[in-house]
Amino acid sequence: MTKRKLGRGVAIVGAGMSKFGAFPGKSSRDLFVDAFQEMLASVDKGFDARDIEALFIGNFSSDLFEGQGHTAPIMADWVGLTPRPATRVEDACASGGVALRQGMLAIASGLYDIVLVGGIEKMTDLPIERVTDTLATAADALYEVPAGFTFPGLYASMATAYMSRYGANTDVFLKVGYKNHENGSLNDKAQFGQRIADIMEMRKKSAAKKGLPIPEWADEMAFLKDDRANPIIAWPMRLYDCSPVSDGAAAVILVSEELASRFTDRPLYVIGSGQASDGATHSRPTMTSLPSAKQAASIAYEMAGVRPADIQVVEVHDCFTVAEIIATEDLGFFEPGQGWRAVEEGQTARGGPRPINTSGGLKSKGHPVGASGVGQVLEIWKQLRGEAGARQLPGAPHLGLTHNVGGTGQTCTVHIFERR
Amino acid sequence: MTKRKLGRGVAIVGAGMSKFGAFPGKSSRDLFVDAFQEMLASVDKGFDARDIEALFIGNFSSDLFEGQGHTAPIMADWVGLTPRPATRVEDACASGGVALRQGMLAIASGLYDIVLVGGIEKMTDLPIERVTDTLATAADALYEVPAGFTFPGLYASMATAYMSRYGANTDVFLKVGYKNHENGSLNDKAQFGQRIADIMEMRKKSAAKKGLPIPEWADEMAFLKDDRANPIIAWPMRLYDCSPVSDGAAAVILVSEELASRFTDRPLYVIGSGQASDGATHSRPTMTSLPSAKQAASIAYEMAGVRPADIQVVEVHDCFTVAEIIATEDLGFFEPGQGWRAVEEGQTARGGPRPINTSGGLKSKGHPVGASGVGQVLEIWKQLRGEAGARQLPGAPHLGLTHNVGGTGQTCTVHIFERR
Repeated sequence: MTKRKLGRGVAIVGAGMSKFGAFPGKSSRDLFVDAFQEMLASVDKGFDARDIEALFIGNFSSDLFEGQGHTAPIMADWVGLTPRPATRVEDACASGGVALRQGMLAIASGLYDIVLVGGIEKMTDLPIERVTDTLATAADALYEVPAGFTFPGLYASMATAYMSRYGANTDVFLKVGYKNHENGSLNDKAQFGQRIADIMEMRKKSAAKKGLPIPEWADEMAFLKDDRANPIIAWPMRLYDCSPVSDGAAAVILVSEELASRFTDRPLYVIGSGQASDGATHSRPTMTSLPSAKQAASIAYEMAGVRPADIQVVEVHDCFTVAEIIATEDLGFFEPGQGWRAVEEGQTARGGPRPINTSGGLKSKGHPVGASGVGQVLEIWKQLRGEAGARQLPGAPHLGLTHNVGGTGQTCTVHIFERR
Repeated sequence: MTKRKLGRGVAIVGAGMSKFGAFPGKSSRDLFVDAFQEMLASVDKGFDARDIEALFIGNFSSDLFEGQGHTAPIMADWVGLTPRPATRVEDACASGGVALRQGMLAIASGLYDIVLVGGIEKMTDLPIERVTDTLATAADALYEVPAGFTFPGLYASMATAYMSRYGANTDVFLKVGYKNHENGSLNDKAQFGQRIADIMEMRKKSAAKKGLPIPEWADEMAFLKDDRANPIIAWPMRLYDCSPVSDGAAAVILVSEELASRFTDRPLYVIGSGQASDGATHSRPTMTSLPSAKQAASIAYEMAGVRPADIQVVEVHDCFTVAEIIATEDLGFFEPGQGWRAVEEGQTARGGPRPINTSGGLKSKGHPVGASGVGQVLEIWKQLRGEAGARQLPGAPHLGLTHNVGGTGQTCTVHIFERR
């Protein structure tokens, strides 16, 4: 496990995504076309799609969500790229990040110069109770599922363990969600791109319209603590602690380093990549950290030759708000047990010293599971190129990181990107 | 699409498989352990499993078959290999071949020196009618499935097109199945390792035992043409034209070329690899050939620098008997329309000039779909190393090929292996 050098460097020269949300009548292939077209248009010096030599598609379970297996060649067909090799990559909600890694390896191998990495998921065609069951197949069907766990319960267990060990209160989780909605309100691709304050107002208007008593909340935290406004899903995780059920797709173009300048003068180089696996939740030495995330981060930092403090833009896998806090510790941005204090202090807000999930994260932007890992790259792409609009971080950031988790950390991938 | 050279060479130094069959009470993880253990034991100079740096697992749909997504890290966990990266690769029934290709790319990239490529599928826990539905998700849910097609029907359509175009009779399909059972009877891993003559005798004994009239068949062909003994599934495909529903796993160890001699003096080098995609069956210019197979074969031959005539050992994807005939043409062993005549003439029998599927093929050996592509490599491994026992081909063959199809050819991979 010593060799960590790629045969050659890899750069991203284009990136696009569909809107994330619930789109009746749009299948994953339609959403992929949306992402593909935006990706093509994003290439500064123009791009001929026929130059794509292979496709790697992250997807958790089109099988269960859409009754469609073998989805990768369908995506190739839908954008006119057959007979190029098209490969589906699956590691639950980390499928997108793992697909990115396969694309990177494919170019580094020397076999390809230009590949497409996509992520897709169409979740909203199923009745919601079947969605939860489907997502539960990403947990261990032998150990976790028979114990009665679905994902809100698994992450809630981590939340209580975290609270017990580090003295965190439940408010801090709500503050993560609050922050991510603030960020997502500046992202026109977000599924729930409303500030919590806006949601409060919508609720009041809706009550008035129905002739119901108009609820009064002192402020957003009061709203988020109201059991009726923000019901408990699995204590301490409430509705606004949980990422939504989403449809969406994202796609990026990877090229070999030496080709990047043909397409853009502002490529993103993939300078670090780590991936790790783990057993089911019960088998771990800790419930307040994901060992796979620490391992993947350590490998990615080593490959990139950078430290956590060097990273300026960060997208982490906030499938639940507690997951964001744990992620910021696993990635080395805060000491173990300090992540929740950083939230309290506003450090992770967009204006803070360690902004996290400027895109809105999975919480506000949406979590079409197989697409999420590639969707994260879109935010890094925009921020490092200075194209993030109203949510642009100051100081022309040049180093970004994505953290993409499958299950409760049975898989984690971490990628580090540089604008030179 | 010009660069076809890998950054460095890749060799196989170990290979193992579970028995293929129906194993109530054994899940895919149990079967994977069987394959893993045989794989470890196969390494001539010994092997420490902890040297494996990553796992690539081909699997079609543990989601639908076992209610278990995110299966790759479970396999890593089950053989004690966490936190190594574990990635599931899916392209329907070509998942195994595509996983092999990912393993090859991963080593060629320089990131890893030693990786495991596995294939798994556990199909027999579902009621059989749900198995057919599950397999149908490998077809196009928008075009093929609503037209009433399941896979027997799709391949039957190819069979009738083939008969119409080239004058083949229905007997020739039966002869493919007959041949593959002859081969499979010499393979102790085969699910249906009986010669057709043995099956005839079993049927007679079974009738006698039940006090029923004992059927009389003049010979094996009469048996295979008997609608009661060998019922029509989708004309002209009969029961013994169809590969079975199977459980099974297979695994191989890939290493960088320069490391091979540490593990064995008889490695297999992966000298050619091709993969291609295609649209759904209706969208193709032909029903008597798989364009993706021709494309994948052409790429693999070019990379390997060999011609079809050079290949000595061949495993093709005979999910249905007609598929074997078409495969032998797509791979360039016979001219279009001549594959059926070659079967008539016994050319593809084990003693013929162009033996096909000496393992018994998917028909006799079994077809645990995600495992099949890796299972094919096992036969090449044994034949090229002179370890195929009673079914060993003479003349110390040194070049082998595998052909692994997903759907009706929405994916095809072709790999070429050399013993030097």
